[in-house]
Amino acid sequence: MQILPTFPDVQQAHLRISGIVHRTPVLSSSGINDLAGVSIVFKCENFQKAGAFKYRGATNAVLILADHEAKNGVATHSSGNHAAALALAAAKRGIKCNVVMPRTAPLPKIEAVRHYGAEITFCEPTLQSREETLKSIMSLSGAVMIHPYDNFNVICGQATAAKEFLEEIPDLDVLLAPVGGGGLLSGTSLSAKSINPGIKVYGCEPANADDAYRSFKSGTIHPSVNPKTIADGLLTSLSELTFTMIRTYVDDIYTVTEDAIIEAMQLIWKRMKIIIEPSSAVPLAVILQNKEFFKGKKAGIILSGGNVDLTNLPFRLA
Amino acid sequence: MQILPTFPDVQQAHLRISGIVHRTPVLSSSGINDLAGVSIVFKCENFQKAGAFKYRGATNAVLILADHEAKNGVATHSSGNHAAALALAAAKRGIKCNVVMPRTAPLPKIEAVRHYGAEITFCEPTLQSREETLKSIMSLSGAVMIHPYDNFNVICGQATAAKEFLEEIPDLDVLLAPVGGGGLLSGTSLSAKSINPGIKVYGCEPANADDAYRSFKSGTIHPSVNPKTIADGLLTSLSELTFTMIRTYVDDIYTVTEDAIIEAMQLIWKRMKIIIEPSSAVPLAVILQNKEFFKGKKAGIILSGGNVDLTNLPFRLA
Repeated sequence: MQILPTFPDVQQAHLRISGIVHRTPVLSSSGINDLAGVSIVFKCENFQKAGAFKYRGATNAVLILADHEAKNGVATHSSGNHAAALALAAAKRGIKCNVVMPRTAPLPKIEAVRHYGAEITFCEPTLQSREETLKSIMSLSGAVMIHPYDNFNVICGQATAAKEFLEEIPDLDVLLAPVGGGGLLSGTSLSAKSINPGIKVYGCEPANADDAYRSFKSGTIHPSVNPKTIADGLLTSLSELTFTMIRTYVDDIYTVTEDAIIEAMQLIWKRMKIIIEPSSAVPLAVILQNKEFFKGKKAGIILSGGNVDLTNLPFRLA
Repeated sequence: MQILPTFPDVQQAHLRISGIVHRTPVLSSSGINDLAGVSIVFKCENFQKAGAFKYRGATNAVLILADHEAKNGVATHSSGNHAAALALAAAKRGIKCNVVMPRTAPLPKIEAVRHYGAEITFCEPTLQSREETLKSIMSLSGAVMIHPYDNFNVICGQATAAKEFLEEIPDLDVLLAPVGGGGLLSGTSLSAKSINPGIKVYGCEPANADDAYRSFKSGTIHPSVNPKTIADGLLTSLSELTFTMIRTYVDDIYTVTEDAIIEAMQLIWKRMKIIIEPSSAVPLAVILQNKEFFKGKKAGIILSGGNVDLTNLPFRLA
């Protein structure tokens, strides 16, 4: 059985990474509040270093390594924000980072990982190829694997976003975060319920990648099978660790359509003048699709990241 | 001879509009600093209400009207941010606003003006049609004309952005602002030189709309003739009032190419995760094209606005 993170672990993580990760700002928009009929505050992890909350977990996981563990570097598989975050965290500690990416990964993501100085090993875009490639790299290099979310220290790092959020805005009634592999939602719900047991925490997921929703409702993990969503940070499946934490701390999971995600994303861009990636828009889409339920509540949303390909935006519909 | 605004006028304006306009945040980016070799701070008027600094001047001009002046509403001609700003300022005071716009104005701009409840009268896209249309509206309605920049109170309002900026970051060596009609640059330079006589203030202009540059260098106003630039907020020509202020307070004017503007815009979007319109990117482009000159200086940039058509972005080149 895995050991679950507790709030004292999160507090330790926060001390460890403070001054290295940004304490990101909290913003709100009267225009969006009027439209939603809900008072919403946004924790802007799109302004986090490397462009997403992932830098919190990666930094915590890298810093906690003893020197003899860190000496051969770290490795991971990811085609997204965790790869760039781990690359930057490793560079700051001065250790090597090797990232296994599918050869089909988008060029901006590959460039971001290279920019931070990580070595990239390309694999076929299959789970089998990814795991075999990573295994061979780790056995050759002796690097420590830092999983994007199935990792105690990564979850503790991600949990610091909600901790900061509730320290700044203590009177939130509900807190919403997107859910992919569940690292952010696990950490968010742990922090939120530890600080304020009365708060409600909701996971927000694309209907086209609703494995967490189905897992939560059925009580057993349903893997994500060939999900197709614009929210490219939310394609992964829960792990035993994140599923256990989500069942313990999360009140419900909501799903939304692709159109609702794009509409919410566009609204945040237009009204708040900030750049978020599609995954970040999922919680606002949930509120806009469930206005009656959220009416009169003070809602917090974690905007998970801001890494988008500016040459390929979904705003042609307007 | 026109009476020129002085810093006490700006201080009065600031008292008048405080609590109505946003005190916008100041941001910086270590990534951009590294690239430029210059320490840069950005005053984010893209987060201002109605999406641009224009709301400062419009609010000041609307609030200063006596009730008997205001009773027939306000009017202006503009196809851009001033129109939306004046519409919102008028709506907040509960008076009418009539905006003359060329029938060729971009749909998002028209929608923004309508959204704030102004009445739009369309004209042909010529100076003559615009002025005749506005004149006939004013004589019919008795509305007060609020010019986008050739207006004492508008300039005093725009000047409050630099006042706030220097209150927050007192040790700026240089301050850069874009220049179109010169309202922002007039106000910016007045505030900056009044607060810190040693500061250098630079106007930043597209080479493809370099009327302010030519006017500044020659000492007589050169109107903008058929300018073609992506910086759609900087198409207008200086007025006698703004030209006089710019000659008095501004140290120099720099021009940059369209490619340099797009590159700087993309850099701010990607690194800072904030949405700015092309006009806002002109000052950063100036620094990046003149790195040696700005090296070692602490530079402030006023990001003038964030109103862009998300379905028509200039990021296809990457």
